[in-house]
Amino acid sequence: MPDGMLTRAELGRVPARAVREAIRAKRWNTTTHDLADGHIQANLAILPERYALDFMRFCHRNPKPCPLLDVTDTGDPEPKRVAPGADLRTDLSRYVLYRDGKKVAELRDIRDLWRADHVAFVMGCSLSFDSALAADGIDPAILRRPGPSGDQPRIPVYTSTIQCVPAGPFKGPMVISMKPVPKGLVDRVAAVTARYPLAHGGPVHVGDPAAVGVDPANSQWTNGCTLGPDDVPMFWGCGVTPQAVAQAAGIPEMITHATGHMFMTDLTLADIRQ
Amino acid sequence: MPDGMLTRAELGRVPARAVREAIRAKRWNTTTHDLADGHIQANLAILPERYALDFMRFCHRNPKPCPLLDVTDTGDPEPKRVAPGADLRTDLSRYVLYRDGKKVAELRDIRDLWRADHVAFVMGCSLSFDSALAADGIDPAILRRPGPSGDQPRIPVYTSTIQCVPAGPFKGPMVISMKPVPKGLVDRVAAVTARYPLAHGGPVHVGDPAAVGVDPANSQWTNGCTLGPDDVPMFWGCGVTPQAVAQAAGIPEMITHATGHMFMTDLTLADIRQ
Repeated sequence: MPDGMLTRAELGRVPARAVREAIRAKRWNTTTHDLADGHIQANLAILPERYALDFMRFCHRNPKPCPLLDVTDTGDPEPKRVAPGADLRTDLSRYVLYRDGKKVAELRDIRDLWRADHVAFVMGCSLSFDSALAADGIDPAILRRPGPSGDQPRIPVYTSTIQCVPAGPFKGPMVISMKPVPKGLVDRVAAVTARYPLAHGGPVHVGDPAAVGVDPANSQWTNGCTLGPDDVPMFWGCGVTPQAVAQAAGIPEMITHATGHMFMTDLTLADIRQ
Repeated sequence: MPDGMLTRAELGRVPARAVREAIRAKRWNTTTHDLADGHIQANLAILPERYALDFMRFCHRNPKPCPLLDVTDTGDPEPKRVAPGADLRTDLSRYVLYRDGKKVAELRDIRDLWRADHVAFVMGCSLSFDSALAADGIDPAILRRPGPSGDQPRIPVYTSTIQCVPAGPFKGPMVISMKPVPKGLVDRVAAVTARYPLAHGGPVHVGDPAAVGVDPANSQWTNGCTLGPDDVPMFWGCGVTPQAVAQAAGIPEMITHATGHMFMTDLTLADIRQ
């Protein structure tokens, strides 16, 4: 490990602010899972102001895939509502720049790209699910399955046939995540997640994957997943949706977090529980 | 009653759509309390698009006084999310037009005023509280007190010293409504209302009115209220707030519903329960 870098264990139980500061000081440069335990991690999308009203309407109309935690003032990189003092130009460990809907760069820092007409959207993330389930006594590890080639279990994500409610140029299919849930736990998992509308809320579909256009073994976004004989597939809105929709709209510029490199908010599970 | 007009009893238990159609046909021209029982009534604010992003951010940052139910596409008077087929230019029984923050007219219909750059905001309303309490077995009538001059009990509304989170030109004090609640019911009333974040959610303050700058007998908006010896005053964010804030900002043009002449949505209590 390079000099001055911190370990995942060192950042595992610190306040979210400490993780943001480590990232800002370039002492952390990889994914954020298991950091600042108990804090809500978030998706980021930065757009020019002329697209912001339509994008905000899109999020409001599609709260399951796009639960809005914070929208910054135009030109202000501080998300005052969820992380006062944070700087969205420096406090994520990796960014992706899209132009005309195409990915053109991955970046460690976006101070050089930030403009006075930028508006940042901070959106809830399904990583919070796992903490919510654990808090309710359901070990999230029992809801993971190996991929079809026996690869590392991950939460699989699919482009579904569920259509989002459009807003201006933003429209298209909802991206959804899947968890295979033992039959006896389905109602409980649905009830627990429904209490966190800002972390995608309750499931958008339970049961037959084909009914929402999904083949579990084939994911457009991640590894697929092999269901066990007693698994009921449950599906939730996924934070990849707003990125997918903004890409499809081909808007001239968008900056997002890179997959797994989430923004760490000061919010805790208790703050977003309904 | 003029020929063709309907009675409150005739519209008491019909779908919300039937009330909207009666208003559109000019067969109903007064306040909407007790109409379309079980349906969510809403506040309306129509603004030019150039103010819409800031106003939407204001609502998002202040969800207790300004719970956003729907935001229309620019130029489209149909609130597709909460009342498909409705027309916000004709389906309210009375509107108020403000110019530069000053009330300049009350109108029965705003088809002549509607423009291609208008954006309409439909926001939750505390009338829904009463249905929620009644559904939980608490008669809302026991939470009303006569005014200081013995006048008709109404829900009193006050400008508080609680400051809203600002967004662009929109800033200022939160307007709050008060209910005097017998001590033994305080926790239950707080819990019931907290389950309806889109109808202002849980209380913003419980107890000493002076702590939020309120003298119960003196309201800036309604009649005041005399508290009984066992009454605990409970306060909620009020839908008057966004209007007050937009007026104070002196924006060139805003159209709202007139007090008590709410927009009838197709939503029911069950639709907005968390």
